[in-house]
Amino acid sequence: MNRVAVEKKVLSENEQIAARIRAALAEAGTLSLNFIGSPGAGKTALLEGTLQRLPAGTRAGVLTGDIQTENDAIRLRRYGYPVKQITTAGACHLDARMIQNNLKDWLDSGLELLLIENVGNLVCPTSYDLGEDAKIVVLSVAEGEDKPLKYPGIFRKAELMLLTKVDLLPYVPFKPELARKNARSIHPGIDLIETSCTTGAGFDRWMKWLAARAERKKAERLEKEAVHAAI
Amino acid sequence: MNRVAVEKKVLSENEQIAARIRAALAEAGTLSLNFIGSPGAGKTALLEGTLQRLPAGTRAGVLTGDIQTENDAIRLRRYGYPVKQITTAGACHLDARMIQNNLKDWLDSGLELLLIENVGNLVCPTSYDLGEDAKIVVLSVAEGEDKPLKYPGIFRKAELMLLTKVDLLPYVPFKPELARKNARSIHPGIDLIETSCTTGAGFDRWMKWLAARAERKKAERLEKEAVHAAI
Repeated sequence: MNRVAVEKKVLSENEQIAARIRAALAEAGTLSLNFIGSPGAGKTALLEGTLQRLPAGTRAGVLTGDIQTENDAIRLRRYGYPVKQITTAGACHLDARMIQNNLKDWLDSGLELLLIENVGNLVCPTSYDLGEDAKIVVLSVAEGEDKPLKYPGIFRKAELMLLTKVDLLPYVPFKPELARKNARSIHPGIDLIETSCTTGAGFDRWMKWLAARAERKKAERLEKEAVHAAI
Repeated sequence: MNRVAVEKKVLSENEQIAARIRAALAEAGTLSLNFIGSPGAGKTALLEGTLQRLPAGTRAGVLTGDIQTENDAIRLRRYGYPVKQITTAGACHLDARMIQNNLKDWLDSGLELLLIENVGNLVCPTSYDLGEDAKIVVLSVAEGEDKPLKYPGIFRKAELMLLTKVDLLPYVPFKPELARKNARSIHPGIDLIETSCTTGAGFDRWMKWLAARAERKKAERLEKEAVHAAI
């Protein structure tokens, strides 16, 4: 079997597992988000800011992927939510099986929100469906505005682009309007929110987006139940 | 053939081509450097600053890899050196064949310095030998100090870590001494230079490193020739 054939087989197995995860998450009423961005884009800081601001009593859990170290899990555990570190031992992305292996006990306890921090990589994680409801691409203003053009795959697939570290805008040549234009040229319907974990800017909008996305998921579920009941 | 076996085969084919490139570069007396870093680490800006500062008459060439766009080649061509863009059409790294295909005519014209800018990715390019003399890892202060621990592969293989964007240090929580400590814990012999393309800080040291590395390559070549002559 040649390389392309093997890659297709691996991806197809991944998709089968992802479909099972998606069904289980739908059953459990869990909103699941897959955060993808370069190393240093600020994914962990963003999740820290998110956990801090979740409404009290939210049943949330975090899976955080890295090639090595438990650093991110240690940072994220300070907020009182369950966090599991997935170390991929060399692999440049999370795959559906890694999620499946770490999700079993959580689903039984009624998870509302599953946040998945992928390995720092703007390329490879894009191809691996984890059974999530939405991919979110995380881009920092310390990177270039042309990233959506250079790495179109993830910007095409993401529902939302979170622009991070906007407190650095006075000190970097980054033009947010150009980044927005580039992102929309790749994916006209992508949502865009600008944030800073240092100043807290934009977190009100992001937390509203998150709440609205969870509501949409609930509504879709009720709709499906209604259809099933009608049939 | 399973996935691991196919990956081994691909890497072994790559190594054969890389060995041929390495021999051809040695023959031509070309110093070749492979720059690896995240998207947004500042690889292109670093190469722009480098081309600007090369001694007049240096026979240098640049190969720059991206998944999509000619943006980097357009930026780099302004300095009067030959630049070729390699678009990988989805692949998350450059491989030796891409280099081989783009190198043929340059070697005949007596290239002294070959700068290779890899696809923005701290993981996958690490495994692909391009026949280069040295890998250089590019890390920006807008990323985290723990990157050497999280992505040890590239820090282990790189001769030099170039820390970029140090002009941002007053505005970010990055601690250079911790990054240095982490890099040295993974690779005790790694060289470290701090640079800023905005202020030009550190470029004197980096250009000296580059000149010294080229001298070492020449000396190694003369040594080999002397051995051959003696035999």
